Amino acid sequence: MVTGIHHVGIAVADLDESIDLYRSALGAELLHRARSDRDGLEAAFMSTGAGEVELLSPTTEDSPVGKFLARRGPGLHHVAYGVTDIAQALDEARGAGLELIDPEPRMGMHGAMIAFVHPKTMGGVLTEFVQT
Amino acid sequence: MVTGIHHVGIAVADLDESIDLYRSALGAELLHRARSDRDGLEAAFMSTGAGEVELLSPTTEDSPVGKFLARRGPGLHHVAYGVTDIAQALDEARGAGLELIDPEPRMGMHGAMIAFVHPKTMGGVLTEFVQT
Repeated sequence: MVTGIHHVGIAVADLDESIDLYRSALGAELLHRARSDRDGLEAAFMSTGAGEVELLSPTTEDSPVGKFLARRGPGLHHVAYGVTDIAQALDEARGAGLELIDPEPRMGMHGAMIAFVHPKTMGGVLTEFVQT
Repeated sequence: MVTGIHHVGIAVADLDESIDLYRSALGAELLHRARSDRDGLEAAFMSTGAGEVELLSPTTEDSPVGKFLARRGPGLHHVAYGVTDIAQALDEARGAGLELIDPEPRMGMHGAMIAFVHPKTMGGVLTEFVQT
């Protein structure tokens, strides 16, 4: 079951500047920073009350976020929904005809199990499930 | 004060198909549909637990969402944050150097007061405040 919008992912060119922007513009608080060599990115998780902003900065140009920035520029990258049972969410997504980027859940930078759905079967929206 | 992510706005080519997609993929429920001649769009508000998905379909090609679709294709369009006091949120946004699309709050399709911040001062993200 989907419990809500867990976070929005935003591709940024400069992580420190973007943290300052979200602090000053929204009063958001930095919860933690993490780096993923697998995904070629550094992320900052900002609390905005109910729901987080995940600022994503590529560490390599050929990473998914690096390619996104080169193609589209900074901006909204993905939306993540909290789910109570990620295996069930993926089964239901398959049943609805969605193409999964992650056919099996994997550990995300939040320390929670995550999986991404391909944007081409979600109306152009890169969509993530996070088990909460 | 920002209370959380109120909704994400998603530009779609076909509103009925998109409502069906969000029902089948996420179990989202249609809360209401509304049409804005001012903004040249029809919107469907879908409940996804904590936070809504606002599906946006243009009614004219030269509307903001019509131009967005022509330029970028369907996908994530904006993110909206709930605020307790929208006049104060706009004052703080001005103080943080943000450019406001709506310098004064206006009535949105939710029946709540809203205002948009220009993406060029928010790292490429069209950002909305909604007084909750």
